[in-house]
Amino acid sequence: AEARGKSKKRDVKRPAGGVAPLAPPKFPDLPPVAGVRFATGSAGIKRKGGADVMLAALAPGTVMASIYTRSATRSAAVHDGENKRAALAGPGDALALIANSGNSNTFTGRVGAQAVAAIASAAGQALGIPAARVFTASTGVIGEPLDATPIAALMPKLVRGLSPGGAEDAARAIMTTDTFAKGATADGMVGGVPVRITGFAKGSGMIAPDMATMLAYLFTDAAVTQSALQAMLVRGAQTSFNAITVDSDTSTSDSVYLAATGQAGNATITSARGKDGRALAELTGRVMQDLALQIVRDGEGATKLIEVRVTGARSDRDAVRVARAIANSPLVKTAIAGGDPNWGRIVMAIGKSGAEADRDLLSVHFGDVLVAEAGCCADSYTEAAGAAEMAKDEITIAVDLGLGRGATRVWTCDLTHGYISINADYRS
Amino acid sequence: AEARGKSKKRDVKRPAGGVAPLAPPKFPDLPPVAGVRFATGSAGIKRKGGADVMLAALAPGTVMASIYTRSATRSAAVHDGENKRAALAGPGDALALIANSGNSNTFTGRVGAQAVAAIASAAGQALGIPAARVFTASTGVIGEPLDATPIAALMPKLVRGLSPGGAEDAARAIMTTDTFAKGATADGMVGGVPVRITGFAKGSGMIAPDMATMLAYLFTDAAVTQSALQAMLVRGAQTSFNAITVDSDTSTSDSVYLAATGQAGNATITSARGKDGRALAELTGRVMQDLALQIVRDGEGATKLIEVRVTGARSDRDAVRVARAIANSPLVKTAIAGGDPNWGRIVMAIGKSGAEADRDLLSVHFGDVLVAEAGCCADSYTEAAGAAEMAKDEITIAVDLGLGRGATRVWTCDLTHGYISINADYRS
Repeated sequence: AEARGKSKKRDVKRPAGGVAPLAPPKFPDLPPVAGVRFATGSAGIKRKGGADVMLAALAPGTVMASIYTRSATRSAAVHDGENKRAALAGPGDALALIANSGNSNTFTGRVGAQAVAAIASAAGQALGIPAARVFTASTGVIGEPLDATPIAALMPKLVRGLSPGGAEDAARAIMTTDTFAKGATADGMVGGVPVRITGFAKGSGMIAPDMATMLAYLFTDAAVTQSALQAMLVRGAQTSFNAITVDSDTSTSDSVYLAATGQAGNATITSARGKDGRALAELTGRVMQDLALQIVRDGEGATKLIEVRVTGARSDRDAVRVARAIANSPLVKTAIAGGDPNWGRIVMAIGKSGAEADRDLLSVHFGDVLVAEAGCCADSYTEAAGAAEMAKDEITIAVDLGLGRGATRVWTCDLTHGYISINADYRS
Repeated sequence: AEARGKSKKRDVKRPAGGVAPLAPPKFPDLPPVAGVRFATGSAGIKRKGGADVMLAALAPGTVMASIYTRSATRSAAVHDGENKRAALAGPGDALALIANSGNSNTFTGRVGAQAVAAIASAAGQALGIPAARVFTASTGVIGEPLDATPIAALMPKLVRGLSPGGAEDAARAIMTTDTFAKGATADGMVGGVPVRITGFAKGSGMIAPDMATMLAYLFTDAAVTQSALQAMLVRGAQTSFNAITVDSDTSTSDSVYLAATGQAGNATITSARGKDGRALAELTGRVMQDLALQIVRDGEGATKLIEVRVTGARSDRDAVRVARAIANSPLVKTAIAGGDPNWGRIVMAIGKSGAEADRDLLSVHFGDVLVAEAGCCADSYTEAAGAAEMAKDEITIAVDLGLGRGATRVWTCDLTHGYISINADYRS
């Protein structure tokens, strides 16, 4: 989501237009998932043109799980999704997912809710399902009324064009400041039959736990109950979308949907904890983490992918506090941007986190290089060794607090002139 | 405080060397405070040379209050100060304050504590007072052992050079990344006699509640008990040093000292709440807020001073949450750097703050310009009016949550290419 005044309509875009240096070499092949079809089109919301609406139609019998931003100023689509979620308790009619890019329909008052209703109603009519089974999402500028009319008018054409192979186009249609489309897929055996999960996501700025200016859609052909699916989604988010931060800012529009069409032929999974449930959760979690790391790789201005590992905390909660304090510290992130093994800033971030920490028990590693322990710089440490770690594209900062068994991992990127240019300068 | 590897010794300094654009036109005249004398000298800690040690000697009968960073990785001097504070319960012998710049003596293990002891011992000997009455502070690089020998050796010379008029030199001796020295003074009537308070401070990066990479020293000739003085300091910090943020990072070294020599001749103030106590607290608070705002004006890369006012929160605590979420948001701060009245980012920050908020009850003003209310952009708002507010050097963002009586004010600065250059690029 991005924010605007009300008179000028502008796209949220990168000033330079290049692809992020950490981008994967190419978009992965996303094979079809039985029961899932996509279509995309242009409603003229993005000023630069191109597809800005995507529709995913899910076969009857599909169950769906969802999680949303916790922002107190969340968007009209998020409120609508939360209200409709209760209707998803069991399989039934077909379901539909719609997303538009270019306008987040956030802080748009009553007209925002009316726009969501109009879009859901048009899609429901075109698909022959109740509007209550249509879930929308909007991403883009904040505070500008979203004109639902061209989106609603697009629906019959989108429904006619639905195709199982359209995932990549769908991934591109939801991009805003993204410099590359983000997709991931995994195949595996669940309950003795081959099962597939495929997903795509968007996001690059206003990215923080919990979630980010991000949308993610995941589809599997596995048969699973809604409650088990929701449990897998919530658990998977803890180590993926809720474990990434670009700039500590939290969006108003974040939504993740996970749909299961049940067409793989496995015996229906009723719990995330049984053998089949764990197998599906593992596949799901893998795709979610893949997508989450792609979002960090597309972090605004990012030139380094940073993994922060915290162990030895008094609790998992303390581990998360320390990891986020490091991952959100502008001083840590600028040091890494400058290739500077500035470990004192790590120590500073640990100190400010609010977590229990003892200067003389904690240790800090850059990759495999021991940097600090026993209350001071390690005897074996050399700045050359630290600088060599900082020169890598992917950097690991590992902190052991020496107090307990609490642990976590989070991912972030460096803070560069590119971030400032994207967020401060592009207007000029 | 700033962080370094252990092999290279470098100054923490601005790459360009210019004075911050928001700097006051000149350093204020700091008239002497009866019972307070200063001296400064060079111990060769700052590679670029110049004075890097300051000594303040306080006449017998002085009482002193202090507050320190809450960081779990705080410096050796902070630990020492906390340990000695109990000894300050009542007036007695003379007291001394010492600060060095260029090395923060943080995360330096046992040798760090030994360095503090050596400096305090040398100062005590030169002044003829117990080392327990000497309070040190260190600011500069983190993680590099501080050589106490040249500082200790300087003490006899500093004691010989003590002079009531040296406050400005003292303010300069504690600077690190500061681009200008920060001082403030106020005179007033307390208990029927003229009373003076004078102070100076340093700090420009790693600045966040609670406190910052900052040191501040305040001196008054008022007669006041230690407990009343401590209460005034703690209360004053809430609306000054604990209400500013540059980059949300919290230093390991922050210390504020407030000394009262008792030589003004007023009847000793025994409570911060009585008439005389309130008068002195008002003077003290004014000087503290002046110094705190000077620190924000010297924020690394700052081109705008931003005041965030929050009213109508359910509690003061919620008000602080919202104010800090706005003041620490990289997206808010980059938008302001770009002169962009990007009010959606304010709404986003309110939403992520964790405070109770209702989209339809809150309002946002830039200066006197109503921007948003009733769940959407205000009818009267124009982007031209918002942009005119953003073009000012000093910007006020006022948020009313419409829920209760909780209120606060915090100050911050914008996030610019200058911040990135100072913190990422200066190494190259």
